[in-house]
Amino acid sequence: MNFKQHEQEPTGFSVALTEALDAVRFDADGLIPAIAQQHDSGEVLMLAWMNREALEETLRTGQVCYFSRSRGKLWRKGESSGQWQKLMSLRFDCDGDCVLLAVDQTGAACHTGRRDCFYWKVEGDRLVLDKAPLVDPATLYSP
Amino acid sequence: MNFKQHEQEPTGFSVALTEALDAVRFDADGLIPAIAQQHDSGEVLMLAWMNREALEETLRTGQVCYFSRSRGKLWRKGESSGQWQKLMSLRFDCDGDCVLLAVDQTGAACHTGRRDCFYWKVEGDRLVLDKAPLVDPATLYSP
Repeated sequence: MNFKQHEQEPTGFSVALTEALDAVRFDADGLIPAIAQQHDSGEVLMLAWMNREALEETLRTGQVCYFSRSRGKLWRKGESSGQWQKLMSLRFDCDGDCVLLAVDQTGAACHTGRRDCFYWKVEGDRLVLDKAPLVDPATLYSP
Repeated sequence: MNFKQHEQEPTGFSVALTEALDAVRFDADGLIPAIAQQHDSGEVLMLAWMNREALEETLRTGQVCYFSRSRGKLWRKGESSGQWQKLMSLRFDCDGDCVLLAVDQTGAACHTGRRDCFYWKVEGDRLVLDKAPLVDPATLYSP
């Protein structure tokens, strides 16, 4: 299976998930970008990365797990902050090189305590910070 | 300026856009992932990539321009297909390594003629194609 080969199939066409996972186009570091979107409001919360193990764990457990590039290991979203992402659905794109996660986000998706990570908005010749934290980040990661 | 340095600033804080563009964390290939979201419905349409030139052109013209990794050049979305993306707003994330574009999409965002690229949905142990084209892709790219 490869994704492009099947792009003209009719609605309802399906392949075995294991076969599809073999066809996912991870990058040279073994990663794929994953967009997390709040399932009901449509807010785009964040973009992070998954390796195959993170993808499989997310599908198996229904709790979103990424791969942290800075820490070089699996990142079970919410494990240290309590701000979990429950998986509602998972989609791949046409090229099999991006994942869209519909999630139910507990509290803040962003490590800064903001609901989402996209709080810098271009306005004319300025970049403006336009969203305030929901929670104090110090309370999210205190020991 | 770097993005993390300012993450605790209050709402309304701003920096010069040129200074912010210097701080954007492009990857080793000079690219940053860009998520395109339909501004009114909230649909996530696609993920593509921008280099600094594409980012600047998008901001200057108000029409979304990506960098095509397969063709190795600027990709003015809609130039060959007529399926333009008008830029409504552009945001950066907390780490300055991802862009969220609010766009007004003409017709189909996906090269397959579908409204968006995320038409492969995991359902149990199957991956199911669940969206039909809006337009015949043959009509989008005919000479």
